[in-house]
Amino acid sequence: MRRKDLLDLESLDQSEIVYLLDTAKSFKEILSRPVKKVPILRGRSVATIFFEASTRTRTSFEHAAKIMSADTYSLAGGTSSIVKGETLKDTMLTLDAMGIDAFVIRHSLSGAAALASRYVPNKPVINAGDGTHAHPTQGLLDMLTIRDVKGRLEGLNVVIVGDIAHSRVARSNIWGLSKMGANVRIVGPATLIPADADKLPVEVYTDLDAALEGADVVNVLRIQLERMTVGYFPTIREYSRLFGVGKARLKAAKPDVTVLHPGPMNRGVEIASDLADDPGISVITDQVTNGVAIRMAALFWLMGAPA
Amino acid sequence: MRRKDLLDLESLDQSEIVYLLDTAKSFKEILSRPVKKVPILRGRSVATIFFEASTRTRTSFEHAAKIMSADTYSLAGGTSSIVKGETLKDTMLTLDAMGIDAFVIRHSLSGAAALASRYVPNKPVINAGDGTHAHPTQGLLDMLTIRDVKGRLEGLNVVIVGDIAHSRVARSNIWGLSKMGANVRIVGPATLIPADADKLPVEVYTDLDAALEGADVVNVLRIQLERMTVGYFPTIREYSRLFGVGKARLKAAKPDVTVLHPGPMNRGVEIASDLADDPGISVITDQVTNGVAIRMAALFWLMGAPA
Amino acid sequence: MRRKDLLDLESLDQSEIVYLLDTAKSFKEILSRPVKKVPILRGRSVATIFFEASTRTRTSFEHAAKIMSADTYSLAGGTSSIVKGETLKDTMLTLDAMGIDAFVIRHSLSGAAALASRYVPNKPVINAGDGTHAHPTQGLLDMLTIRDVKGRLEGLNVVIVGDIAHSRVARSNIWGLSKMGANVRIVGPATLIPADADKLPVEVYTDLDAALEGADVVNVLRIQLERMTVGYFPTIREYSRLFGVGKARLKAAKPDVTVLHPGPMNRGVEIASDLADDPGISVITDQVTNGVAIRMAALFWLMGAPA
Repeated sequence: MRRKDLLDLESLDQSEIVYLLDTAKSFKEILSRPVKKVPILRGRSVATIFFEASTRTRTSFEHAAKIMSADTYSLAGGTSSIVKGETLKDTMLTLDAMGIDAFVIRHSLSGAAALASRYVPNKPVINAGDGTHAHPTQGLLDMLTIRDVKGRLEGLNVVIVGDIAHSRVARSNIWGLSKMGANVRIVGPATLIPADADKLPVEVYTDLDAALEGADVVNVLRIQLERMTVGYFPTIREYSRLFGVGKARLKAAKPDVTVLHPGPMNRGVEIASDLADDPGISVITDQVTNGVAIRMAALFWLMGAPA
Repeated sequence: MRRKDLLDLESLDQSEIVYLLDTAKSFKEILSRPVKKVPILRGRSVATIFFEASTRTRTSFEHAAKIMSADTYSLAGGTSSIVKGETLKDTMLTLDAMGIDAFVIRHSLSGAAALASRYVPNKPVINAGDGTHAHPTQGLLDMLTIRDVKGRLEGLNVVIVGDIAHSRVARSNIWGLSKMGANVRIVGPATLIPADADKLPVEVYTDLDAALEGADVVNVLRIQLERMTVGYFPTIREYSRLFGVGKARLKAAKPDVTVLHPGPMNRGVEIASDLADDPGISVITDQVTNGVAIRMAALFWLMGAPA
Repeated sequence: MRRKDLLDLESLDQSEIVYLLDTAKSFKEILSRPVKKVPILRGRSVATIFFEASTRTRTSFEHAAKIMSADTYSLAGGTSSIVKGETLKDTMLTLDAMGIDAFVIRHSLSGAAALASRYVPNKPVINAGDGTHAHPTQGLLDMLTIRDVKGRLEGLNVVIVGDIAHSRVARSNIWGLSKMGANVRIVGPATLIPADADKLPVEVYTDLDAALEGADVVNVLRIQLERMTVGYFPTIREYSRLFGVGKARLKAAKPDVTVLHPGPMNRGVEIASDLADDPGISVITDQVTNGVAIRMAALFWLMGAPA
């Protein structure tokens, strides 16, 4: 049960998702040790190639790799000549020829990670976010976090609120959660509901209170403030009033509702600051910890023992 | 005798300063080995978070950490999304949740490191310079360098010359040296003497020749050339003539006077180039070496053996 | 047979070149292992100081160093204060005093690496490209690649095509190959043939077809598209038509002709895309692999066992 790449959750089987969640769970024990170092990937190397900047996600992957004793190389689109001066093809061929063993790619274009994968037919590629398409390790870490709190995923009512149309986090949550038997609801301004929502395994809402009715879990997406200027919603205040999540709003949800946010947060816009900091409801820092464990599991799954 | 953080020298006891200097002294032996690697911090991780750029200080901390086998992560304010897109609080909570074990922070605002420390109550924070407040490892490395040359700190006349008002290096020297029993004199243009100088354990001068009378040590601060444009001093030439330190100027000092500079130098402005390069007087490269040893000592003190 | 520095190939003996090629050849075995890690440089450190950006070359050096267990530090001219705020002298003195063991330097000025070397009289400096002067590891990796394919260098006809005048790659190829007994031909627009070409061990051509007659090897240089705007050649189309290398053009060469390119490529300008990807003719990805091996050999040669 090993694949070449981790490009999205849509193409994974339920058994593969369970394997990744269980493997990450066992790796969490390493994260709690004072000495966080195991020799699993010693002498192997991972390049993080980020055409879009994200120190948070890049650091999470690099930490996961280093805990398993891999060497890491960081190539950033903004500052890196390997990226500016070349086609994606030549960048991949070059790093492959250098002997880099695995690749973590973030790109603003949907499909970029899949394209990159074709140029390195013998080496794993992990998609760390491609356009509006997928961000599979985020989906997995959200699922691991929910499963840790609730004990299961099946049958849970999970509400994803925000800019669904432009969110790869939403897509990976939708596919992963529905494969695991959760009921996924999406809610946001009508302008930010994807045009193909009827083809996704979700229930669509445009009223937040209705969507929250009986919710076990609410996953609050980061709102890109620049969307406002291009007409998707009128003002931040308006967005926050209609779709911002705070404690009062959660009354329609189940009493033990759990709140996630992929970060970085716009506190006071899409999520109330006191809610984000309430350890009885919010599991945002658990998501970050689980992110390292999931990335360890993904690297281990794909790189594993040398064949 | 272990603290959570190293934020300034004002709050340290003399015994803690002596402990750090002695520990650094013993670590210097490692630096002189061909194989500079000890397993003290193996499996532990240190993040350097520099909102102000300083490759010199950042590299010194990272080298100190790597010599002790720690993994390092570098987050820079200018280019890092973790820093731009988030509050300091969320940056600290995120890195803490990832399992990073210690934090080295530089920020242009006084108090930033202390604030950051509050968000990670169980993990050490080292202040690598916050606004005009403190730069404790610089103060310590200056003291170690002086003690190595003079055999003691007590009773020495130490002159700090330059832009005292805006210098965290000056503040950390003033507090550290005076706790160790040295007599500290500060000298510079009246516009660059701090308004609260009467509350500091120093003698204030505005005439360099008078300040140098009987000096054992002269610590020459870097002058920020951009200060000129906002009226603190009229021209570089004027500053250099009145407060620049060269060999002729040092005649009023003791014959065995020692000169320090925290770097990077404006050669020919605050310090004459031939003086900077004279190994009989200048200990500027020793300061750099001692900087690595002091940072090893600080990381060891705060991270030590896992509790 | 150990030198302090590797600054160019002009000053190396044939025996030193052979030693480096043979050592790299033996290191290639390590690159083919699943676990690519040997303890040769454990506890030693290498700083890459790139005043000109080149992620490709920097990553190759860092990978070479890390495979041999060295720690690496990356200082980039564009973003690094150590570089902006200081003279080259003080940058080198500072890194030397920190205990960094070896330096890899790229700079836009010819002679910069030699100058840097003078400030660290006891430590090795590797020139990773200085102005139009030299790029010795590129010359060596090109020679290793050619020797691997042809079994020898002596007597081969090697054509270097492109902007010879501004190319440090060309210079290092010319000196290295001629020392090894190859016949080197240079060809390009008359404006891009160096003024001192008659003092170089080469035959000069301005007609590509004539130059290719009987060629064993063609090394196609990257054309800097910005040269066009300053009058060196009229248009990209014109350059490509006259000096671009494609399969049809190669008919004048020997049937088993081998094509190199130092990368990054402008596909469709100086080299046809199908030619670049043809594994029967192009050895461009081999060059990249050999680059890591050559840099391992260079670091090993200069840093070797601690004296």
